[in-house]
Amino acid sequence: MTTSAIQRIEEAYQAQLNRTFYAAWPENPRAYAEDAGAKGLEAFQKSLANNFKGLDDLGSHQWIGEEVSPFLQQGLGIQYPAFTTEVLLEKATSAQQRWSKTSVEQRADILVACLDKVSERFFEIAYATMHTTGQSYVMSFQASGPHANDRAMEAISMGYKELTRFPSQVEWVKNMGKFDLTLHKNYKPIPKGVSLVIGCSTFPTWNTVPGLFASLITGNVAIVKPHPKSILPIAIVVAEMHKIFADAGLPQGIVQLAVDTVAKPITKELAEHAAVKMIDYTGGSAFGDYLETLSGKTVFTEKAGVNSVILDSVNDASAVFGNLAFAASLYSGQMCTAPQNVFVSESGVATSDGHLSYDEVVSGIAAAVKGLAENPKMGAGTLGAIQNEITAKRVKDTMESVGSGAVAAASVVVDNAEFPDARTASPTVIAVDAEAVSTWKHECFGPIVFVVKTKDADHSLQLAAECARELGAITCQCYSTNSEFMDKTEETMNAVFTPVSFNFTGAAFVNQHAAYSDFHVSGGNPSGNATFTDAQYINRRFVWVGNRRM
Amino acid sequence: MTTSAIQRIEEAYQAQLNRTFYAAWPENPRAYAEDAGAKGLEAFQKSLANNFKGLDDLGSHQWIGEEVSPFLQQGLGIQYPAFTTEVLLEKATSAQQRWSKTSVEQRADILVACLDKVSERFFEIAYATMHTTGQSYVMSFQASGPHANDRAMEAISMGYKELTRFPSQVEWVKNMGKFDLTLHKNYKPIPKGVSLVIGCSTFPTWNTVPGLFASLITGNVAIVKPHPKSILPIAIVVAEMHKIFADAGLPQGIVQLAVDTVAKPITKELAEHAAVKMIDYTGGSAFGDYLETLSGKTVFTEKAGVNSVILDSVNDASAVFGNLAFAASLYSGQMCTAPQNVFVSESGVATSDGHLSYDEVVSGIAAAVKGLAENPKMGAGTLGAIQNEITAKRVKDTMESVGSGAVAAASVVVDNAEFPDARTASPTVIAVDAEAVSTWKHECFGPIVFVVKTKDADHSLQLAAECARELGAITCQCYSTNSEFMDKTEETMNAVFTPVSFNFTGAAFVNQHAAYSDFHVSGGNPSGNATFTDAQYINRRFVWVGNRRM
Repeated sequence: MTTSAIQRIEEAYQAQLNRTFYAAWPENPRAYAEDAGAKGLEAFQKSLANNFKGLDDLGSHQWIGEEVSPFLQQGLGIQYPAFTTEVLLEKATSAQQRWSKTSVEQRADILVACLDKVSERFFEIAYATMHTTGQSYVMSFQASGPHANDRAMEAISMGYKELTRFPSQVEWVKNMGKFDLTLHKNYKPIPKGVSLVIGCSTFPTWNTVPGLFASLITGNVAIVKPHPKSILPIAIVVAEMHKIFADAGLPQGIVQLAVDTVAKPITKELAEHAAVKMIDYTGGSAFGDYLETLSGKTVFTEKAGVNSVILDSVNDASAVFGNLAFAASLYSGQMCTAPQNVFVSESGVATSDGHLSYDEVVSGIAAAVKGLAENPKMGAGTLGAIQNEITAKRVKDTMESVGSGAVAAASVVVDNAEFPDARTASPTVIAVDAEAVSTWKHECFGPIVFVVKTKDADHSLQLAAECARELGAITCQCYSTNSEFMDKTEETMNAVFTPVSFNFTGAAFVNQHAAYSDFHVSGGNPSGNATFTDAQYINRRFVWVGNRRM
Repeated sequence: MTTSAIQRIEEAYQAQLNRTFYAAWPENPRAYAEDAGAKGLEAFQKSLANNFKGLDDLGSHQWIGEEVSPFLQQGLGIQYPAFTTEVLLEKATSAQQRWSKTSVEQRADILVACLDKVSERFFEIAYATMHTTGQSYVMSFQASGPHANDRAMEAISMGYKELTRFPSQVEWVKNMGKFDLTLHKNYKPIPKGVSLVIGCSTFPTWNTVPGLFASLITGNVAIVKPHPKSILPIAIVVAEMHKIFADAGLPQGIVQLAVDTVAKPITKELAEHAAVKMIDYTGGSAFGDYLETLSGKTVFTEKAGVNSVILDSVNDASAVFGNLAFAASLYSGQMCTAPQNVFVSESGVATSDGHLSYDEVVSGIAAAVKGLAENPKMGAGTLGAIQNEITAKRVKDTMESVGSGAVAAASVVVDNAEFPDARTASPTVIAVDAEAVSTWKHECFGPIVFVVKTKDADHSLQLAAECARELGAITCQCYSTNSEFMDKTEETMNAVFTPVSFNFTGAAFVNQHAAYSDFHVSGGNPSGNATFTDAQYINRRFVWVGNRRM
């Protein structure tokens, strides 16, 4: 193993241990070669209407693919080799034999090399992400490129530390009075076996690589099952990994891509197969709940949640409305961390410039959301496009069901100069009474914000905590100038395993979870049972076994 | 917190990290005060035919108890306060509020003090263990006293380390080009909630305290539900803990004892209650499997297994037979780590003194087992007594079902001079062909040893691995002078998550798992899903939650 891989892992682990800012790969596209963007676009364009290059198709029974660009509303025409469950698991089981025999150091070396190799295609991955998820160009680059790589590096470094936590062998000596009893003991982290990593349509690499690299560093092989509408970004990642495996004389079965279609999904068949020992999943709650019940599997989930904002009192109302508008508009509210319900007391909100009534708060948020959407320099780039037609329909249906009187900001199509056919929708802002639980107290995925009128700040907090406990929550934002209420909010929301961000304005947004510092999804409420990245995210993937010799 | 508690925790953790020999409490009764044994006996005798003293009975609806001494075959007549599930959970939930507000340092201090306090009653606990489990005096002392305390200390020290792994607060600074974005972040290990710890009849403290102290150090309160036939040892532990809690001004609801009877068990009602978030369990596989399926609970199990011995080739046959005989006889095979199936090739076993046929191996093991049982200085003290009448019946039924021709050593009642009424049974040694799977390929709890005739050593290994994979295994012993076969055995058994001990003779026994060094139960096969003590045994009991402020 090269010294540099270990050094980088140690550095990443120190950052993780200290929860400090750290970035193994620059998140700014300008830090890369001047022509990297153009080359990435060219590579992406070449891949269109073609069979995907770089994946072994040995044993595949057909080529399939049905991705559609949310920006173009046209099919990409890219086909991927498809395999039966039997073929996938045969290759995986065979590769497992080989991969589990590599040392932790070898695996660390290879996996860091994989990430470096992937980084050479960050721009192509960015375009692939744009045209499958609808994310803007900059978000696509950051989320699927450096931020994803950093989350993978986080898993590798935590993995390396956990796997080397105990000595591989020791001499154990116990004095028995008249003599010493000496036993030679060794300790081995034994991998659990084949891992199935199920991706989602909105963050095809960022949500996939943590589980993938966590399984790989612990000696397990993986089958990556992307969402059928969002394959290309992770296909590029897998193809680059295959190059590194080939260089190292390792089988490609260590990581396989399992593609399917919406009409003929293969996920259940894979998940229920006896040879699959672990499952990583990002997606809707119903399927995640089902996976969690499968017996004999170690399952890691990130499911849906309902994220709350508790708006109690603020200094600068316009800075707060602006921040909230951006958090709700970023990728059209399609981030798992986006706020949905803003709880505001019926008596309104105190600000440094005087008191705002509930209605004024609603108008303020609505105006900020509309202002952002209509801003020609900001709107289209912040919103990106709507990944799934169902999401666009949900926005319309929700507005219709509450009636125009409740709609403070209507969702509108936002012109995208670069992509005139883009499927866009600005957030709708809806005023609703706390009593109308059927309206706001469930997940409304997409650009939908409810400003929920409550009795007072304590009631707001109570409802936010209820949502987190019953429906799950990944984030919570609290705006308050009252330190006592802030402490109470922190304690109450933490008790339902929900992190709180306080008084974010300016460049800090509740949606953003930084690698090495912010645990993503607590794992303690219905929004998921696992965290990027704590020690158990690693330790549940292998088993310590100790042997003793006289 | 006193410096000494932290120092002791650090010392214990270093031993655990290095897997070296360490004992926080001496395991030799002679290391204690000269009259400690007599005082312990006196205290035990005083407790007989009486209401148990030291547990709060506030809110209890009756006093119950049905323990029977396997040495006396008489009821102990000790009654304990019984509570309804509602009362138990009301107290637990209330105590949880208080306990979760203590700092990690406070909890560590209090829990180490609890163990010190418990150590003052080691001798009384030893007699309590003898007369509920049937363990011999020395094993009762060691297993329920210092060894149990050490396993608890192991959980505390791993817990302390995991809970303090990340800083409680940091300043996170990210350069944004023209300015720095600074966020103040904190990280809190939030306890999951009420923990139910279900004990077994054979090791009432050793198998209970690891989960109990792991839950407590992580800020959770616990309800201890002992086996109705084995309450007294852990009742003493809980009573001593209550003294420490009282001194610290803490509620006794932090640890409660929930007693029931065989006829009216309350375990399911407790386990299924929504307020119970975690379950630790030691016992039979059927109930353990049921507990593992309960949704919304974090469940840690040690269930049954079938432990194998692979007898390939040896140097000193009599040393090996003697070691095996002791391992099978210790506490009459009622240890979860005791060997059941000894796999021997039909071609026999090579030794330094020549070749032994399969029949000679069977006779050798049988002779060693009989010799030990008949040895007046060793027999009764090694065997102890049979905890449950069902176990004694199983031995008889098994001998009958295989027929006298197969019984190489019949189980006999072994006279115990001190306790003439003791329920005893020496191990039966039964010769059986590998094909007769219905005889040997299932758990036969108690003093039953099958010497299974296989095709060859590889076949022996294959069967041992099959047993571990399908039925679970906590230990495996391999006797071989062939280093290639030893390596193969290690790899094959480790792949089914079973540790292997090689060529134990003399004072080393496969049954013994040392705290701080040997992981007990791997957690990777059907014998259980958890380990004493790896990091996840701790980390699955709390959730990291981070908060961010501008």
